[in-house]
Amino acid sequence: MRTSIATVSLSGSLTEKLTAASRAGFDGVEIFENDLLASPLTPEEIRGRCADLGLTIDLYQPMRDIEAVPAGEFARNLRRARRKFELMRRLGTDTVLVCSSVHPLAVDDDALAAAQLTELADLASDFGIRVAYEALAWGRHVSTYDHAWRIVESAGHPALGTCLDSFHILSRGSDPKGVEDIPGEKIFFLQLADAPLLAMDVLQWSRHYRCFPGQGGFDITDLVRRVLRTGYDGPLSLEVFNDVYRQADAGPTAVDAHRSLLVLEEAVGVRDLPAPVVPSGIAFAELVTPDAAPLSSLLGALGFVRAARHRSKPVDLWQQGEARLLVNTGPAGRRDGTVLAAIGLESPDPEGASHRAEALLAPVLPRRRATEDAPLDAVAAPDGTELFFCATDRPGRPNWRADFEDVPHDPSAGTVRRVDHLALVQPWHQFDEAALFHRSVLGLHAQESVDVADPYGLMRSRAVTNADGTVRVALSVGAAPTDDTVHAQHIALATDDVVGAARRFREAGGRLLPMPANYYDDLAARFDLTDEELDAYRGLGILYDRDAHGEFRHCYTRTVGRVFFELVQRDAGYRGYGAQNAPVRLAAQHAVNSVTGG
Amino acid sequence: MRTSIATVSLSGSLTEKLTAASRAGFDGVEIFENDLLASPLTPEEIRGRCADLGLTIDLYQPMRDIEAVPAGEFARNLRRARRKFELMRRLGTDTVLVCSSVHPLAVDDDALAAAQLTELADLASDFGIRVAYEALAWGRHVSTYDHAWRIVESAGHPALGTCLDSFHILSRGSDPKGVEDIPGEKIFFLQLADAPLLAMDVLQWSRHYRCFPGQGGFDITDLVRRVLRTGYDGPLSLEVFNDVYRQADAGPTAVDAHRSLLVLEEAVGVRDLPAPVVPSGIAFAELVTPDAAPLSSLLGALGFVRAARHRSKPVDLWQQGEARLLVNTGPAGRRDGTVLAAIGLESPDPEGASHRAEALLAPVLPRRRATEDAPLDAVAAPDGTELFFCATDRPGRPNWRADFEDVPHDPSAGTVRRVDHLALVQPWHQFDEAALFHRSVLGLHAQESVDVADPYGLMRSRAVTNADGTVRVALSVGAAPTDDTVHAQHIALATDDVVGAARRFREAGGRLLPMPANYYDDLAARFDLTDEELDAYRGLGILYDRDAHGEFRHCYTRTVGRVFFELVQRDAGYRGYGAQNAPVRLAAQHAVNSVTGG
Repeated sequence: MRTSIATVSLSGSLTEKLTAASRAGFDGVEIFENDLLASPLTPEEIRGRCADLGLTIDLYQPMRDIEAVPAGEFARNLRRARRKFELMRRLGTDTVLVCSSVHPLAVDDDALAAAQLTELADLASDFGIRVAYEALAWGRHVSTYDHAWRIVESAGHPALGTCLDSFHILSRGSDPKGVEDIPGEKIFFLQLADAPLLAMDVLQWSRHYRCFPGQGGFDITDLVRRVLRTGYDGPLSLEVFNDVYRQADAGPTAVDAHRSLLVLEEAVGVRDLPAPVVPSGIAFAELVTPDAAPLSSLLGALGFVRAARHRSKPVDLWQQGEARLLVNTGPAGRRDGTVLAAIGLESPDPEGASHRAEALLAPVLPRRRATEDAPLDAVAAPDGTELFFCATDRPGRPNWRADFEDVPHDPSAGTVRRVDHLALVQPWHQFDEAALFHRSVLGLHAQESVDVADPYGLMRSRAVTNADGTVRVALSVGAAPTDDTVHAQHIALATDDVVGAARRFREAGGRLLPMPANYYDDLAARFDLTDEELDAYRGLGILYDRDAHGEFRHCYTRTVGRVFFELVQRDAGYRGYGAQNAPVRLAAQHAVNSVTGG
Repeated sequence: MRTSIATVSLSGSLTEKLTAASRAGFDGVEIFENDLLASPLTPEEIRGRCADLGLTIDLYQPMRDIEAVPAGEFARNLRRARRKFELMRRLGTDTVLVCSSVHPLAVDDDALAAAQLTELADLASDFGIRVAYEALAWGRHVSTYDHAWRIVESAGHPALGTCLDSFHILSRGSDPKGVEDIPGEKIFFLQLADAPLLAMDVLQWSRHYRCFPGQGGFDITDLVRRVLRTGYDGPLSLEVFNDVYRQADAGPTAVDAHRSLLVLEEAVGVRDLPAPVVPSGIAFAELVTPDAAPLSSLLGALGFVRAARHRSKPVDLWQQGEARLLVNTGPAGRRDGTVLAAIGLESPDPEGASHRAEALLAPVLPRRRATEDAPLDAVAAPDGTELFFCATDRPGRPNWRADFEDVPHDPSAGTVRRVDHLALVQPWHQFDEAALFHRSVLGLHAQESVDVADPYGLMRSRAVTNADGTVRVALSVGAAPTDDTVHAQHIALATDDVVGAARRFREAGGRLLPMPANYYDDLAARFDLTDEELDAYRGLGILYDRDAHGEFRHCYTRTVGRVFFELVQRDAGYRGYGAQNAPVRLAAQHAVNSVTGG
């Protein structure tokens, strides 16, 4: 099917918006009236620009409060409509959206509405234009799609049809079943927007909180399936009013928008995409650093051993159990110190995973590699983290591990078994985008979003996981751009004995993040922990949480560059990440940074 | 009365919060449990820090879901309470808040609730502690203040009273009349928060959108009057959960918070403040610039003449009608070019206005002035703009104008009569603060807030005015920190003939901001303007708006440094500022800046 996006969904000038929509692969656009009014381009120039960019102009919506109004008012509306139809002819678009009236003078009279819409459609016909009538959820008298359709049906004019909008239908809790009763050729347009399920005034909800399909809580898939059953063959068009997207760079927003439609098309069965290949583990995490020394001390204290070195690149492999960390001191090293630059995802089918990612618009990364190296399929996540799809020591698959030559080393004395989870702070504008990316491209499941109170602002956190919990990524975002040092990425390492692991780390010279004594007094009040347990936790800075299914114990290292580590002892049933303890941990990190000045 | 603030209302570490509360003049604090848990200070050290800062600790709220629960659950709650009471003794606070239960096991049994609260109060008594029981608006079985009071009353325990919270009472639309039936000595605490009137889930509303009294839509004054009639003599305490204040600097937030309480105390008749002195006009606007040449050309083209020069400072007075602009090239000149640094407010009683401002915590500015200069009372607005309270050529008042010596000049040929309004972009975190400041300190009236779509993000704008419209200030804020060049401050100049004024400006070499042709095609569709009018507007870049009471025509100069000018022709009845046209104007400014690179 054809895909389209309303220019109001993107940030910037009209030409910036058109360019972003075209680059992201959209077939067409809806031009929002304010974007046209504010543009220095003439309608003919806009038409030409769209043609150059391979975009059709699928819809224009210059008119409000048209129908069911007194005769004098309607005469003025028609006069205005004529001007707008002339403009649309210059623009080269043939469908005009008319939303149900919110005018204070509008009357509750379907016959009058139908008669006036017929007159409008007559005028539109003279210009080769079709009128698509849509029920606004807050329309004065017409607020449901079936009501709008009854008026269109009774008018019986060939140039008058209806426009369906998923937000207006689903925000009111209307049963979407009835759309199947509308003949497909009378559905002139389909606008799509999702939204988080908020209990709030529907007008404010619509104007500020819409999002792309799959990012919110509506069942858009079901609605689109029903619309397609009618024989509708117009575009799937996104019309998303969202305060964040108004500010975010148009390019990434448009890519995310188009990705949401591709996934939707796949779900309703009108687009074949390479099947999702869910990663089955974390093969490695790659740290890039300009100076390996501080990181090497830290990893050594954590019980990692330097097990191998890349044959052709300045990359060391540190290992403990199934946890593998690459330390890269190559030219990618950044001025801001040590960063978590890449993640290796153990994949049942690396090539298939890469094909799906590419089909879903993830940037495929060129690899600078020696000819003898194993091929590695890699894409960039929305936050810039490189994701490698790989196989570790699996027969019949290129083995990234074979690019590393073992170096002499003692066996690790540590108890870390694997990576428990990776915690990635997302760019401010891309939190929804990141969750949709990880779900649709990687086939991970997104848990509920939780609020976390940092001393200097509220953060949101949302985890994505595979079914058996061997891949867990905690995505988080601050309320606004904040202190980068504290909001570093982190790697959580799973152990069966966090007390032992923390002790060994400290004995080996590692510095744990100290936690306040008051926290432990509170633990004693909340839980039946033995004095011995409590003393151990207090002495080491171990935090404790419990849910209905199990316990969770965790502690943190100091930060190196923009990365820190967490030691985690997780009961099998426990689903969370210690969010309850995050305010204490964040305050402790701020306190350490304000004391050490870093 | 004593004033207090909950630490959760402020950003930062516990000690940062305490310091800010003390500096802003609060008498006490409520310590929020997470702030204590995350603090490296022991309870004794926190107590000492508060004492040093002159703060009492008025409340602690470490417990939730206490009452109306099964016996086993309650036994655990009591065990926890004992720990917390021990902690409170160390902290030196004697009132504990208990919110009505939201526990899934809580039962709808007032007798059980009363019995368990009695047991809790018995235990509290042993520690010299009082229990204040409060109805959460979303409490499972107890969600109204009168219900909570019935339970407290039936328990009849001397150490058990109620806590009233304006948010929980007013968000549910409860009639506050009933609070007068509660004996004052049984009201153990009064928590105050305002909130904008949003139709949304009450829990989300409470956790993210509370604000200080006078910033929202609740009638806090009426509630507090009723509470005081009971004989309540505890503190007025602010408990405000707000995502913005969590991020904003604690210092200004605490000042704004305390100001809101002072104004509230004045309104309920328990505090005498110097009476408001509403400004009666704009005496002058002062521009500071490192280079007067570009500004002088612009002002000359606008029809201003350089009429006088300050006797002892490098400040020129440019005048046209009653519009006076000071151009200051003194040492205050900043690197970022020309800025609007100060506003002279014509005041019926400059000294009185200054006294009120000082009493309401506005920073009083020291004036570096020569001994012969007229004394000028000045304070800083929240955005740093200097506000002078002055008298212009009024007998019996120090006359700032007399500090300027006339220079030879031709009379102005321009038609500007006065300053129509000043438009001031506010720091991101201080929009609510700015509105409250202008209302309470200056006695101006705040109009409704409106959304304005900039191409790169949504802005909010709110005007404050005096009764006759001779002082109008449009405060605005972006959705997040954005491009400073475009979001410059501006000065709108009133003329009776904007077409003539714009023509003269252009003929004198001034550059008007060009507006897109599409805008004028839309004007033609929307309004019955003559072709002649339209052509004039189109040629000059004049924008047009109309409300029920009159018309508004306006156009803009290019930006100099961080300031631009608007020429405004306003019908007497028109109340707005052309917000309808702001998206087009903002897009035009972005377009000019992206072309000229500045």
